Amino acid sequence: MGIIVQKYGGSSVATPELIKNVAKKIIKAKEEGNKVVVVVSAPGDETDDLISLAKEITDSPDEREMDVLLSTGEQKSIALLAIAIKSLGYDAISFTGLQVGIITDDVHGKARIVKVGDEKIKKALDLDKIVIVAGFQGVNEEEEITTLGRGGSDLTAVALAHVLNSEICELYKDVDGIFTANPKIVPKARLIEKISYEEMLEMASAGAQVVNARCIEYAQKYNVPIRVRSSFNNSLGTLITKEAKEMEKLFVSGVTYNKDEAKITVLGVPDKPGIAATVFRSIADENVNVDMIVQDVSEEGITNISFTVVKDELKKALDAIERIREKVGIKDVITDENIAKVSVVGIGMKTHSGVAAMMFEALASANINIEMISTSEIKISCVIDKKDVENAVRVLHEKFKLDKI
Amino acid sequence: MGIIVQKYGGSSVATPELIKNVAKKIIKAKEEGNKVVVVVSAPGDETDDLISLAKEITDSPDEREMDVLLSTGEQKSIALLAIAIKSLGYDAISFTGLQVGIITDDVHGKARIVKVGDEKIKKALDLDKIVIVAGFQGVNEEEEITTLGRGGSDLTAVALAHVLNSEICELYKDVDGIFTANPKIVPKARLIEKISYEEMLEMASAGAQVVNARCIEYAQKYNVPIRVRSSFNNSLGTLITKEAKEMEKLFVSGVTYNKDEAKITVLGVPDKPGIAATVFRSIADENVNVDMIVQDVSEEGITNISFTVVKDELKKALDAIERIREKVGIKDVITDENIAKVSVVGIGMKTHSGVAAMMFEALASANINIEMISTSEIKISCVIDKKDVENAVRVLHEKFKLDKI
Repeated sequence: MGIIVQKYGGSSVATPELIKNVAKKIIKAKEEGNKVVVVVSAPGDETDDLISLAKEITDSPDEREMDVLLSTGEQKSIALLAIAIKSLGYDAISFTGLQVGIITDDVHGKARIVKVGDEKIKKALDLDKIVIVAGFQGVNEEEEITTLGRGGSDLTAVALAHVLNSEICELYKDVDGIFTANPKIVPKARLIEKISYEEMLEMASAGAQVVNARCIEYAQKYNVPIRVRSSFNNSLGTLITKEAKEMEKLFVSGVTYNKDEAKITVLGVPDKPGIAATVFRSIADENVNVDMIVQDVSEEGITNISFTVVKDELKKALDAIERIREKVGIKDVITDENIAKVSVVGIGMKTHSGVAAMMFEALASANINIEMISTSEIKISCVIDKKDVENAVRVLHEKFKLDKI
Repeated sequence: MGIIVQKYGGSSVATPELIKNVAKKIIKAKEEGNKVVVVVSAPGDETDDLISLAKEITDSPDEREMDVLLSTGEQKSIALLAIAIKSLGYDAISFTGLQVGIITDDVHGKARIVKVGDEKIKKALDLDKIVIVAGFQGVNEEEEITTLGRGGSDLTAVALAHVLNSEICELYKDVDGIFTANPKIVPKARLIEKISYEEMLEMASAGAQVVNARCIEYAQKYNVPIRVRSSFNNSLGTLITKEAKEMEKLFVSGVTYNKDEAKITVLGVPDKPGIAATVFRSIADENVNVDMIVQDVSEEGITNISFTVVKDELKKALDAIERIREKVGIKDVITDENIAKVSVVGIGMKTHSGVAAMMFEALASANINIEMISTSEIKISCVIDKKDVENAVRVLHEKFKLDKI
């Protein structure tokens, strides 16, 4: 009898009625002969509500205590879900991150998993129980509560699937799977049946919010197959797995965008070794992730560096720069929050040339100006004006004929 | 520098504004030169809301999972309170029951404390931090979450005060202290400045809901002085401590009542040894507490037994009786939820006779019928019709002249 790990998001457990529905779905998987481990997020808008509550007390709540606060959301869900399953006559048991032994580092609000316990879960599965685990949370070595940040529950599910040698990690979402572009923007967008970790990783980093990049990275590292599917119907969704021969080798698999970043430009820095290192070290020390980085061509030994960060972390990044401003000799710092990033991703890019040119042509034909460009082996991203983003996604989806296989 | 333990109830931390006020009160105690440990309950109606949520899923939610669910309430409070204190520039750290090491037995929903850790708290106090601990919760030896039941947070506070050798355990309430009777019913009721554990214990068991009986019992056992005071003003409230010479030795200290009990009468049981034992063992095995017990004078080898239980546990008690009904040969079981218990309590009763007679006279003069009577060394309780209870409290308060010292 194989183990499957299922993960349900907050919208699937927002009300008692929905919780009962999820309980039935879980029982169905159990009845089909599986050992079932379920990871669940905080119900509905609980996490956001808790953040608002803390912000009513202070603008910058203590990070350790925020994790103590936020972790209550998932704890609520696991208890209610276990109660629902037991009320339907099946045995279930809930575990918090601490109880399972999800050990993380010390970075509150954005902790990395370092170890996952399996003992309690295996014992419960052997007693024929359905196991419900709180997503998003862990503890450091001192049993201080930590949270894993955005997409943390997906990560919990993948980490458990790995340590339990699970056959599949099913991520139940409020969408049908991964599409060639956001169907809200491109009505002709097509559901992708199977996609490689590599492509999915690039799509996620490029803004496809269905699955978090860290989660895909983890799955790729340990080769955990993921199925992204809807919690509201029975469609099979999208399988994310290692690259396979039979996969469609389109040179572009999908178009993604991201409106959550802001651009910072550091003006007039001396163009000499160590300057960029100083700037980005100061930002990294604040645990702020930098996405795209572009350095201008130097003029008279002076250059400008532009980069993007998630908007939520803009203030932290600016504070970090302020601290090294004099030392580095920065002339000025300007920010732009009205940007968006649009990307095309495809494993076939490795062997096809001309994708970048096609992308720039498509954007030009729609009169969309490109502010920054960044490329990887299987992705090309452009920063453009935020107002143009939906149009950009549409023209790119059209240009690469993504509605047709 | 002495340690003081303060406990704040749910109504004191119901909103961000109130949490900030409590934070200021705590900081004041710290500024006065104390090491401060704070125990806090779930905010506002959170616990009731969580119970309702579970009841929307099923009428009889699993007890282990209910504890997982309910313990999130206090966890929310500790995080928010620590955030508030830190935002005011003072160092604070929150701990859950598990983190502190509040070890209990296995009785979910009503666990008893068996051990309390002090290491983490002392370490934090030595680092000059204000320590915030979640009330009402603990874990059993297997780190399964448990809750302590009604008045559990007060109990947590007293247990911590004991293990930390604290000078005083301050219980902040939404009332000014302990009164000779409920001031809502008897406007002339007087605040009691000092009361012995023994009397307070009887008053609590007799329905004075300000402090829970288990909490007083614990304080008495370890001689922890308790001060019950208001979280909304600076009045000194009531000191609960061991009997002292200077205490007022009134033969009646207070009048209390309880409307939360129901009466069960077991009719036509054989009057032979072991029958009562069988009945009450079956009820005890369900962890239902029985309060008053009266057995009728036997007629022709057949008798009736009446007893009271908390209304919430009526169903459990009836189920237990049903299971032994045939074995014991019970003819019928009747219940009455329209009862109330009124009690007079006073340490002076030990040495004064005639208190019972005075009580019965007072009730008779008000035309109030007595259904059951039970006495202890320092308490007399009568079960009466629920509709008479407020009148009974008033006439007894008058009869024993409790408005005058």
